[in-house]
Amino acid sequence: MARGYHHAGTHNREAVFHLFYRKNPFGGHYAVAAGLALAVDYLQNLHFAVDDIQYLAGLKGNDDRPLFDETFLNFLQRFKFSCDIEAVPEGTVVFPHEPLLRVQGPLWQCQLIETALLNLINFSTLIATKAARITAAAQGDTVLEFGLRRAQGIDGGLTASRAAYIGGCHATSNVLAGKMYGIPVKGTHAHSWVMSFADELESFRAYAAAMPANSVFLVDTYDTIEGVKNAVTVGKEMRKNGHEMSGIRLDSGNLAQLSVEARKILDAGGFPQASIVASNDLDEYRIEKLKNEGAKITIWGVGTRLATAYDQPALGGVYKLAALKNADGKWDYKIKISEDAIKTSNPGRLSVRRIRKNGIPQADVIYDADLDNDGTFTLHPFDGSPTINFTFADGEDLLQPLFKNGKFVGKTESIHALRERTLAQVALFQKTDIENYRTGLEAQVWEKKRELRREV
Amino acid sequence: MARGYHHAGTHNREAVFHLFYRKNPFGGHYAVAAGLALAVDYLQNLHFAVDDIQYLAGLKGNDDRPLFDETFLNFLQRFKFSCDIEAVPEGTVVFPHEPLLRVQGPLWQCQLIETALLNLINFSTLIATKAARITAAAQGDTVLEFGLRRAQGIDGGLTASRAAYIGGCHATSNVLAGKMYGIPVKGTHAHSWVMSFADELESFRAYAAAMPANSVFLVDTYDTIEGVKNAVTVGKEMRKNGHEMSGIRLDSGNLAQLSVEARKILDAGGFPQASIVASNDLDEYRIEKLKNEGAKITIWGVGTRLATAYDQPALGGVYKLAALKNADGKWDYKIKISEDAIKTSNPGRLSVRRIRKNGIPQADVIYDADLDNDGTFTLHPFDGSPTINFTFADGEDLLQPLFKNGKFVGKTESIHALRERTLAQVALFQKTDIENYRTGLEAQVWEKKRELRREV
Repeated sequence: MARGYHHAGTHNREAVFHLFYRKNPFGGHYAVAAGLALAVDYLQNLHFAVDDIQYLAGLKGNDDRPLFDETFLNFLQRFKFSCDIEAVPEGTVVFPHEPLLRVQGPLWQCQLIETALLNLINFSTLIATKAARITAAAQGDTVLEFGLRRAQGIDGGLTASRAAYIGGCHATSNVLAGKMYGIPVKGTHAHSWVMSFADELESFRAYAAAMPANSVFLVDTYDTIEGVKNAVTVGKEMRKNGHEMSGIRLDSGNLAQLSVEARKILDAGGFPQASIVASNDLDEYRIEKLKNEGAKITIWGVGTRLATAYDQPALGGVYKLAALKNADGKWDYKIKISEDAIKTSNPGRLSVRRIRKNGIPQADVIYDADLDNDGTFTLHPFDGSPTINFTFADGEDLLQPLFKNGKFVGKTESIHALRERTLAQVALFQKTDIENYRTGLEAQVWEKKRELRREV
Repeated sequence: MARGYHHAGTHNREAVFHLFYRKNPFGGHYAVAAGLALAVDYLQNLHFAVDDIQYLAGLKGNDDRPLFDETFLNFLQRFKFSCDIEAVPEGTVVFPHEPLLRVQGPLWQCQLIETALLNLINFSTLIATKAARITAAAQGDTVLEFGLRRAQGIDGGLTASRAAYIGGCHATSNVLAGKMYGIPVKGTHAHSWVMSFADELESFRAYAAAMPANSVFLVDTYDTIEGVKNAVTVGKEMRKNGHEMSGIRLDSGNLAQLSVEARKILDAGGFPQASIVASNDLDEYRIEKLKNEGAKITIWGVGTRLATAYDQPALGGVYKLAALKNADGKWDYKIKISEDAIKTSNPGRLSVRRIRKNGIPQADVIYDADLDNDGTFTLHPFDGSPTINFTFADGEDLLQPLFKNGKFVGKTESIHALRERTLAQVALFQKTDIENYRTGLEAQVWEKKRELRREV
């Protein structure tokens, strides 16, 4: 397509694209935006290296002749990213149809970065949202992300660990993610540790000797209840040396029942503070069920179902052209029609305003950034409910400047700040009537969309 | 755990681990092994860099003291990978419980690489298997992998593209995967291409002018049937300039019905050779359904549901300790017991023999590599059916040497050879009674397992 735009001479027309999703994942009420720092990193390093050009020069069309000519390849080699981008910060609660990013710049550049942006934002947003759901289900308990062994490759795992932390998890077992992103790392030992010793008791003793300050014993290699008793035995021995057992881990069987029995044994043994870590295909549904069953689990190790977003492994984020500048300098607004009305895209150069009352979010309004708007405006909710009037001043914009003419102008935030934002926003939206939270189009955008739909 | 073994002094005990999965993905009858070259690349580069050691030195336990001491960190920094590995080549049809890799070497090293191996083999095997299913459903039609925008990060997408090609796909839209792995690249244009021109006809003309030898027109931006007619118009104009339209692409609506109508219009217009490409959440189930509905689709673009293995986004591969060498040089066989008998692991230093008769696979037998076996042996099928006797000479081993004392000793095969292996093996297994294909344990392994289970 870049070659096409270049050939047609339309490559440098100024365009506006929005990246958004259409449906909340996991049947939930919102998503948690994530992945932006990865996109920034990608865009800051975006260029065509000599070997990229060589590769492209070797590609052939169906007629066995080169797909790309010299002029175009030289054009690519000279390319410097020059778009403007506004974006919703990571850790922000977002809703369907809201632009998570607005990209403005030369048509071909906007298009060039489409797939990478979708890839990076879609997956991170999906996992951060899943993590927020799991963390909420854990009701304040510690949640550890254990997903690397089932993630989509080494970097798929790294991305998952990062997004899971932003979404609210407390730590990861992925040590490389810990190193790269500054996420706390936590882990226990495996069954093979126990199996490599003559018996379980000996294996726990050896682990306590090696890791006295990180002594979580996996108790289900042979018999879970015997395992808990062995943990108590070793815990008592540790105390004589001035150390305190951290806890035990359950990885199979009836976790609710076993955790209750384990709690009794630990308490009776003098270890009321010892943690009970549980793992084994956990997610928000299973955690909620275990809580309801009275499980005495204090730390949740969540792997496969978090790192792959098992019950919905893709967020259907899209990237749509919304405006194109004419020769006369005016914007030509664009929509992509669909038989399904809700899938018709929104035209313009869009922003999102979150209206608050006494600090509590009331509604999100998608409006045109070029709108002269310092008074009130009217919201047309997507759910078809009656329009509502709001005062512009009662809200704040979700989209923040990220790139200006290809230069990064955004804020660099620590990953801990991103996680704090998620926790604060999730807590804030718990104070709203989330099922009836209104999102929609400002009246002029709504009118423009209707007009364009008629035209098409 | 590495720190634990080192502290206990058991780190250099010679161990054997097997990597295997327990259940075929997608309710199918087998999996297609993949990901091995990625594992080789990982293992050949495995070391602790100075900044890794610095990071580990900064980690603290629950007592706020360093988790790792100097002696251990120095030990890590001096580490050189020295394991032996045998592995099933990529593109091989495999079954549950069969070791895809057998790792033998110092206990701590076998354990160190566990998570990376699981990550790399699990995901690639999952996607190669999905691709094989989709390719089979397409019955010889071209299948293009279009998954990058929904994959798990940039590298998740690269891994998916690689595995999809090994599994039988013909090309990818991921140009970086094309460059890195030598996979053919194919793509079309997006709706935004059409939207950026005054009308669809103009947009098709511009595309034809820019890419005459790769002219697939996306026809559903406004009205699909009008789009097909516009493609015919432009196709006729192309012919006057000596070019031939490649075809059209459908991306929404009733694909079966629209493809039939499009075929009629293309044929009547003089383009019986023009391809009809279809995309839109396709997978093997939808392709089969569309085929049954008489769809006239000739090229299938498969994205999200392939690259994320949407209906089962993780393969439950595991890595289990199976033997540990004693001080007297004898192997101490190990099993991990589970309440679920089929989840109890298999002991020994295992190989897999595929028995053939007139070239057709008859059964897979998991046997101990140390078994003196040049005559017949007895198979105990996992499904509980009666034992069967086979002649050892009638089979070949699936596991091939990959690393010897840490050095790569495997074959380096082109990605095209791996894909050819998949296609050949899938075709071969189509000649078997796949639902009754027997896999199981050789009698001595079976006996040993029973004995160990009793002991535990």
